[in-house]
Amino acid sequence: MTNLSGRNIISFDDLSIDDVLSIFETADEINADPKKFFGHASGRIASTLFYEPSTRTRLSFESSMQRLGGGVISAWDVNASSASKGESLADTVRVVSSYSDIMIIRHPWEGAVKLAAEYSQVPVINAGDGKHEHPTQTLCDLYTLRERHGSLEGLNVAICGDLSNGRTVHSLAFALARFGSNIIFVPGDGNDIPDYVLRRLERDYKAHIQKEGLGILKALFNSESPTETGSSINAIYVTPKEPHQLAMSSLEGNTVDFNIPEGESLSLYVTRRQTERGSIEINKGDYPFLDEKALSSSSFKDVSILHPLPRVDEVSPEVDQDPRSLYFRQAAVGIPIRMALMLHLLGSTDVENKKEKVFNSGQFSGVKYARSDFVCSNETCISNKETQFSKPAYEIVKDKQYKLRCLYCDFETICDLVGNIESKFFYSTELLDRFLPTVLLENVRFFRSDEEAKLAGFKKASDRWNKLQWKTGRNSRDWIETITE
Amino acid sequence: MTNLSGRNIISFDDLSIDDVLSIFETADEINADPKKFFGHASGRIASTLFYEPSTRTRLSFESSMQRLGGGVISAWDVNASSASKGESLADTVRVVSSYSDIMIIRHPWEGAVKLAAEYSQVPVINAGDGKHEHPTQTLCDLYTLRERHGSLEGLNVAICGDLSNGRTVHSLAFALARFGSNIIFVPGDGNDIPDYVLRRLERDYKAHIQKEGLGILKALFNSESPTETGSSINAIYVTPKEPHQLAMSSLEGNTVDFNIPEGESLSLYVTRRQTERGSIEINKGDYPFLDEKALSSSSFKDVSILHPLPRVDEVSPEVDQDPRSLYFRQAAVGIPIRMALMLHLLGSTDVENKKEKVFNSGQFSGVKYARSDFVCSNETCISNKETQFSKPAYEIVKDKQYKLRCLYCDFETICDLVGNIESKFFYSTELLDRFLPTVLLENVRFFRSDEEAKLAGFKKASDRWNKLQWKTGRNSRDWIETITE
Amino acid sequence: MTNLSGRNIISFDDLSIDDVLSIFETADEINADPKKFFGHASGRIASTLFYEPSTRTRLSFESSMQRLGGGVISAWDVNASSASKGESLADTVRVVSSYSDIMIIRHPWEGAVKLAAEYSQVPVINAGDGKHEHPTQTLCDLYTLRERHGSLEGLNVAICGDLSNGRTVHSLAFALARFGSNIIFVPGDGNDIPDYVLRRLERDYKAHIQKEGLGILKALFNSESPTETGSSINAIYVTPKEPHQLAMSSLEGNTVDFNIPEGESLSLYVTRRQTERGSIEINKGDYPFLDEKALSSSSFKDVSILHPLPRVDEVSPEVDQDPRSLYFRQAAVGIPIRMALMLHLLGSTDVENKKEKVFNSGQFSGVKYARSDFVCSNETCISNKETQFSKPAYEIVKDKQYKLRCLYCDFETICDLVGNIESKFFYSTELLDRFLPTVLLENVRFFRSDEEAKLAGFKKASDRWNKLQWKTGRNSRDWIETITE
Repeated sequence: MTNLSGRNIISFDDLSIDDVLSIFETADEINADPKKFFGHASGRIASTLFYEPSTRTRLSFESSMQRLGGGVISAWDVNASSASKGESLADTVRVVSSYSDIMIIRHPWEGAVKLAAEYSQVPVINAGDGKHEHPTQTLCDLYTLRERHGSLEGLNVAICGDLSNGRTVHSLAFALARFGSNIIFVPGDGNDIPDYVLRRLERDYKAHIQKEGLGILKALFNSESPTETGSSINAIYVTPKEPHQLAMSSLEGNTVDFNIPEGESLSLYVTRRQTERGSIEINKGDYPFLDEKALSSSSFKDVSILHPLPRVDEVSPEVDQDPRSLYFRQAAVGIPIRMALMLHLLGSTDVENKKEKVFNSGQFSGVKYARSDFVCSNETCISNKETQFSKPAYEIVKDKQYKLRCLYCDFETICDLVGNIESKFFYSTELLDRFLPTVLLENVRFFRSDEEAKLAGFKKASDRWNKLQWKTGRNSRDWIETITE
Repeated sequence: MTNLSGRNIISFDDLSIDDVLSIFETADEINADPKKFFGHASGRIASTLFYEPSTRTRLSFESSMQRLGGGVISAWDVNASSASKGESLADTVRVVSSYSDIMIIRHPWEGAVKLAAEYSQVPVINAGDGKHEHPTQTLCDLYTLRERHGSLEGLNVAICGDLSNGRTVHSLAFALARFGSNIIFVPGDGNDIPDYVLRRLERDYKAHIQKEGLGILKALFNSESPTETGSSINAIYVTPKEPHQLAMSSLEGNTVDFNIPEGESLSLYVTRRQTERGSIEINKGDYPFLDEKALSSSSFKDVSILHPLPRVDEVSPEVDQDPRSLYFRQAAVGIPIRMALMLHLLGSTDVENKKEKVFNSGQFSGVKYARSDFVCSNETCISNKETQFSKPAYEIVKDKQYKLRCLYCDFETICDLVGNIESKFFYSTELLDRFLPTVLLENVRFFRSDEEAKLAGFKKASDRWNKLQWKTGRNSRDWIETITE
Repeated sequence: MTNLSGRNIISFDDLSIDDVLSIFETADEINADPKKFFGHASGRIASTLFYEPSTRTRLSFESSMQRLGGGVISAWDVNASSASKGESLADTVRVVSSYSDIMIIRHPWEGAVKLAAEYSQVPVINAGDGKHEHPTQTLCDLYTLRERHGSLEGLNVAICGDLSNGRTVHSLAFALARFGSNIIFVPGDGNDIPDYVLRRLERDYKAHIQKEGLGILKALFNSESPTETGSSINAIYVTPKEPHQLAMSSLEGNTVDFNIPEGESLSLYVTRRQTERGSIEINKGDYPFLDEKALSSSSFKDVSILHPLPRVDEVSPEVDQDPRSLYFRQAAVGIPIRMALMLHLLGSTDVENKKEKVFNSGQFSGVKYARSDFVCSNETCISNKETQFSKPAYEIVKDKQYKLRCLYCDFETICDLVGNIESKFFYSTELLDRFLPTVLLENVRFFRSDEEAKLAGFKKASDRWNKLQWKTGRNSRDWIETITE
């Protein structure tokens, strides 16, 4: 039995598979008899704090809380009120959390809701932090698919459109991967899925790149009648071994074939062009458009059409009446899902029992680097906005290069340089791999440029010295020695 | 017993006389013991969706729902949130209706709430759609008069001020007519009651034009002490046989006399200058102004003073304490009235049983003309704004000319031309009257101008041909034949 | 037993000491078992009408009402809605009070909530009227201090920062004085406590000026380690005999010493720079700043740190974790305090039994001067904004000069001239003192300038005449005679 009471839901990753299934089971019960749950939150108050407008999400939470018998306090134009007096998010959250039993927060800056949770006395739900996470949207997405298809395992879910800016997409991809669905990324031109998402799918969920046919999905881009067999496509996919992951980073490029296996269903998840997030302008025809013609292939016979809404023009209104359309159902399940989630979080006052990730020993990758003198490269990360209240920390990521992944916003900053705090010399991070077993994290400082290292008072180790160190192993000893004590 | 459950209230006309009386009886019960009704809507949610600000109306609905024990979700600055992402009203309504049990909508475009009701899963109440309808205001108006005077039948109600733009006025006029009140229109200069309202009063409620004295009401326009007897006025009235309707389209013009019969009461309904709706600027003295002096005539001894509020300066604050002032009572009854209305609409989940109007056979007038290729002439009609989601339809209206009354916004577009879809010729609509019994509606297309008809691929029938057709009856046969199959 | 039901809370002065203690006792009960009170306001509605944004205060009231089981209707961007149609505050309040059982109002104009209460049918709570009053903030301040220190009597409370513009400060000073706390005013440069506040402390609460040491508090202004003994300060204090009042109008000037007695605690109440209220720009170092260093003196060992929030930078975040910091507790007690207050006001429907102040006979000072032809000098006083609905009235105040204290906003207008309504001559107000016993208030009109008096049709009495009057006593008789009848 999973225990969610008192927990914060900042990222979908905060939920285990058991947690999610437990929420789904409660949502099933609510769907079966919604009135039964009225009164379960009597006398409890939810606060909705929206620093960015979102009628849909806010109303969904507020309706859910009231269907449980609870009350709601709401501030959805926060910039116009206290914020204009210069109050920090941390202070606002400390106060408002003392007025309520659960907080729902939306904020334009990545990581802001994580910071809020650090200062809140009550459970916090992320209702969207910039282009970062929106975990309850993902819960609704999964629940809708599960409701229609019975299970998420083995579903082929094509995710189409703006894959670079849509926060819902990244959460969904991770979630689908965890639940064993197969993913096909079908980005609009210039809206590829970011590398760090692909890498994380691969790294954390054992995805690996493979090639499959995808031609049939091309029909979505020019609204022509789809061919009945797989046709040529121009992309690379990322596919995990299990669950099955297909990623196509661009429609330009290599030609590959994709055939949906017989008897398997296909779900389409279309996102709108998020123009307000600064995505690239797309020419007509470069972005998916679903109408009845595009959906006329027998391959789409049992397809489910999902969309997080609001839509602009990616899905023709003529599709609305089509029984394959689930996007309004997807919105409607927001009520039982959010009722279930809040019921679980309010369930008892047990203190959250966060489990620290266990990292592999003998390597830096995956290790926490908690130095406030390193500044996240994402300008809209909350750690760059509320410097007095944030506690910057990073996960060290190593693939081709060393990177620091911000624990607030997940942005990965490439760090090619590493300083030895004792000797005050800095080196290429390549050295780390070689001497890793003997390097202590406390003696290491990462830099993204020579300038940054020099400003911090470090001197560049000469190339010749570096080479010597590499060659002799003797000169490198002073590095090793100083960092191992 | 009337059954309102599950119904939409878009226009006051959606309510039968029995419906209204049934609501009033419930409101009487609520007034007698408000606490008795707390809990009747427990666990139910009302959503207030305001695309145009209106504190008064919104708070009245929200208080009413909560006095019933229900919850409220509210978005009252909608343009700042989802709407700015380009979402259609239809989509917003589909989603929000899945969060709530009843929707209350205000929108700046005429017909918008009717369109919303077409996409909502739950009952919709119109809280004002542009300058079109505002049925709950009318309910409050009638209830206040009934409360004071015991009955609406035979009341002489003078409606003064801006009669051209005020939506409350038109609804009120139709409603008063149906309940047997006598109406005197006293427009400010340039704010006459529109022709289509007068015509509909005449057509649907058997009003006919007659002349009566109205001099005493002139005092309202210059705040001088009123004369005690009827004095000269300069106008034309429209008066229905039963109920008694007096319409004066302007204070300029003919001189007529009006004397309020002995023993009959007079109610004044004053509207404010709706400057934001683009009404004509009125010089001081051209607009009614009520102060104690203007009300000093013994004819006004038992007058009821109503005003939909907010007022600007039409009623002097000195009148506020006068027991004849009912405008604050009029606002206060908004609570029991809206509680009663919502109770009835939420009453059960019976599906709305809309009755189609029965039209007279053998004539086009009153017949529905549902062609999406005809565009309503009202630019702010919702059918011109949400073209993808609206289903334009019209009622064919014939008085002097043929007109198409939009079923969304009630605007009447004059159509002097009619096309024969088979022959592709277009003619004067005068022909329709002659050949009506044999013309099939499916073969007819209405046009407002030659250009429109030609753009649609129709050719103009020559005058000589037309005359020949008229004369011989033989040439007209090809018209008749083609249109009768 | 105090009876608060049906009362308005416009100023903290509307509450007697017994009232406050009664509220505190209820708050204690709520703190002990909050759930016990759920349902005590079932079916009741609170309306929050905010003409100025204040997320914190609004949410606190709305949470409190819902924790009692009541409902909330809220308009917190009022200028965008009905107000833009030109509606008066009086009309809005009359209508919204008919929708609710209690009103909570914030308004940018001084006295606005008092005017609102005059038109409301239900109890009104002032949630801030311009820079005037904010009584529930004061209740929270006192309750927090009482909770920590057991009692308010004999506490030494230093009030630091912007003492000229902060409404919370003035209310707090009066309240602390009434409850027997000692006050030390420590203003930032140019932010002295206003004279009328000092005068009222002295006049109404028997404060008198005395000098004490205050050097230790200087540390707050430059964030240096405080000296352990009293050091030189540059100010004048106002100290009541009992309770003990210490007022220092400026840090510049005279040198005085202040030593906190052994064993007595010191509370610091820091206000933020209220830039939006037009306070003077303060150079760094001229405004108090609390960090751990400044608080390192043993004199501050048991200090309580209060702040009404939101803060800008007066208190370092490093102090947040310090157990001496109470400012977040101060915000949190807003819930039990406002629950308790609303419970008391909603308690029964007894009509408010306002007691008229009893004035001393034989003097004008303290007497009510209710003439609408005198206009308050405070431009943002509600009486200058809603002239049709306000009923201007003043208290005559005499210290060095005659002044009229507006009963809406408390602003004191100096009036050096007084007119004799019968003779139409005006004189220096010095005459009043001399002839007071025989002057009737009805015959007197106050003026602030010759121009004003002349505009009102009064003639200036010549200096020679005045002198003669003074000397002979005979010529002055026509003044006395005309005004005494």
